Amino acid sequence: MIRAFTYSDKKLTLLDQTRLPSLTAYVTATTVEEVCDAIRTMKVRGAPAIGVCAAYGLAIAAHAAPKTGYGAFMAAFGRAADRLASSRPTAVNLFWAIERMTAKAAKLKGRPPAEIVRALEAEARLIEEEDLSINRAIGENLLGLLGDGATVLTHCNAGILATSGYGTALAPVYLAKERGMNIRVYADETRPLLQGARLTAYELRQSGVDVTLICDGMAAAVMAKGIIDAVVVGCDRVAANGDTANKIGTFGLSVLAKHFGVPMYVAAPTPTIDLGCATGRDIPIEERDESEVTCGFGVRTAPEGVKVYNPAFDVTPWEHITSIVTETGIACPPYGERLKALTGRAREQR
Amino acid sequence: MIRAFTYSDKKLTLLDQTRLPSLTAYVTATTVEEVCDAIRTMKVRGAPAIGVCAAYGLAIAAHAAPKTGYGAFMAAFGRAADRLASSRPTAVNLFWAIERMTAKAAKLKGRPPAEIVRALEAEARLIEEEDLSINRAIGENLLGLLGDGATVLTHCNAGILATSGYGTALAPVYLAKERGMNIRVYADETRPLLQGARLTAYELRQSGVDVTLICDGMAAAVMAKGIIDAVVVGCDRVAANGDTANKIGTFGLSVLAKHFGVPMYVAAPTPTIDLGCATGRDIPIEERDESEVTCGFGVRTAPEGVKVYNPAFDVTPWEHITSIVTETGIACPPYGERLKALTGRAREQR
Repeated sequence: MIRAFTYSDKKLTLLDQTRLPSLTAYVTATTVEEVCDAIRTMKVRGAPAIGVCAAYGLAIAAHAAPKTGYGAFMAAFGRAADRLASSRPTAVNLFWAIERMTAKAAKLKGRPPAEIVRALEAEARLIEEEDLSINRAIGENLLGLLGDGATVLTHCNAGILATSGYGTALAPVYLAKERGMNIRVYADETRPLLQGARLTAYELRQSGVDVTLICDGMAAAVMAKGIIDAVVVGCDRVAANGDTANKIGTFGLSVLAKHFGVPMYVAAPTPTIDLGCATGRDIPIEERDESEVTCGFGVRTAPEGVKVYNPAFDVTPWEHITSIVTETGIACPPYGERLKALTGRAREQR
Repeated sequence: MIRAFTYSDKKLTLLDQTRLPSLTAYVTATTVEEVCDAIRTMKVRGAPAIGVCAAYGLAIAAHAAPKTGYGAFMAAFGRAADRLASSRPTAVNLFWAIERMTAKAAKLKGRPPAEIVRALEAEARLIEEEDLSINRAIGENLLGLLGDGATVLTHCNAGILATSGYGTALAPVYLAKERGMNIRVYADETRPLLQGARLTAYELRQSGVDVTLICDGMAAAVMAKGIIDAVVVGCDRVAANGDTANKIGTFGLSVLAKHFGVPMYVAAPTPTIDLGCATGRDIPIEERDESEVTCGFGVRTAPEGVKVYNPAFDVTPWEHITSIVTETGIACPPYGERLKALTGRAREQR
């Protein structure tokens, strides 16, 4: 199975996502600086994948830190944590992983550095395993909704390449494949950054899944044919009422799904559910550089100086979402109480 | 005002649309071969523009044809017509213009060749003037619906660059500009061929119109802001019941417009209304090469061998269209009788 990254023997090996889909090339990181560089230059991307790689970066830093005493060890470890934290300043999972690793090191104060190193490496592996098992559980829940033989439409990349494995929205597709079942995928190319064309089409094809690439504006024509059984997407943040921020284009897809009577499923690991955010109006929407739209292919495709509106995300209102599928269960509208319960269940299981 | 082409003194000067938006370059055609080449290589595109340029190509051919007698003259003229007809085999306006010019020449049988040449040149000018006046009339009708200060969303290019001037969907924007009124435009980039980014954004910006470029998947987010007063698009063919074939992505836009309560206007010169086509199901939809999606800009953006679905057009059902706006008037649903009446009125005026 294709992997975004693997760790062994103090070395993180990364599939260089900046070279995809033209070239399947791997880079290795054996220092925390190399891990930072890989995150900063987006050789690895996707919130869960970034979090796990940061944890491994700290395991690598722990191996390299001086073992002369706890103070010297923690000083080096802390510098590595600061460096990692500045590699992608907006990635929530990055800070969460760094905090969790730092808390682990702090708890072991007084123990021999060699023991702390082993414990930190084990903690990073645990973070990866937890991510993988969250994804498998989401995949099971989604597969139950979809069933064998389904054809789904997806947007952006919520697959293997964004996680430790399986992905979130694509997890049921890979689970089905493992079990000799068959789920077909239509992938929106997802302008401006083309994660659908570059990453989703790539990882599905590499995995032997039946995938068809379309431009974003073709989704209505495809749905009108009656061949799409469900729209399945990931998410960047889910508000307490179920409003969901995801890659720009998801909202329009939800309007089409409603119009054509196609169910719309959001794959959401419970850490992505932000109960502190009452509704989608409280989710800030990042606007990105116009060059992503005007020179997205390395070629200038729009006149110099033209005004551009380039929001990276949009918010799908909860009314458009048939189900929010987490690792601890499936929520249907109205979402408030059910999302609270699923999040609470996840906390108990940890 | 920017022009797709101008004719004077046996010479057709064309804005080379293959170089846009990076370079504003002109090419001249002084032989029918050069006109054919410009059409074939899409230096000029857009059904009305192709038709008028073909007519001028025949005027140029008439000038060059032997004046020794009617037979020799018509033999050379006929060869030029055949050559032009093969330059873009699917463009309806191309054949229509060639037939009209050929009929004109046939009517003048027995007259001196020099007189026929003058008449053919005048006929080509008339075809251009008629196209321009159709566009202005559509613009007047649309401007009445929109009013000063409106903000419209458009898709693909139904502007100056597709016509003799003004365009169809963009005609009200240019008329408003001439009158000191102000219509703002959001332009979908229109994947895969980016006519919105390359052509619509270019011609509006060159003309001093307030234009904002977005990716196709951003239309829902823009409409949700409540800033779009109408969606205005052109069309490739309108069926007798009002179902409308236009650039892929238009159908999805119509679903969004309906959802957000935004009026959806189709700008349709009456020659585009095909009363012989009962409904949209009778309109064949061209599927184009996958390379438009996977390597649209000379850069490979999807994995080798991935399946692609690339329809060039989609059909917007008549129920989604608020009004079909022609040069002879405005039709509202149900469209059947009204489209017949508007088409009949256009025939009477000719």
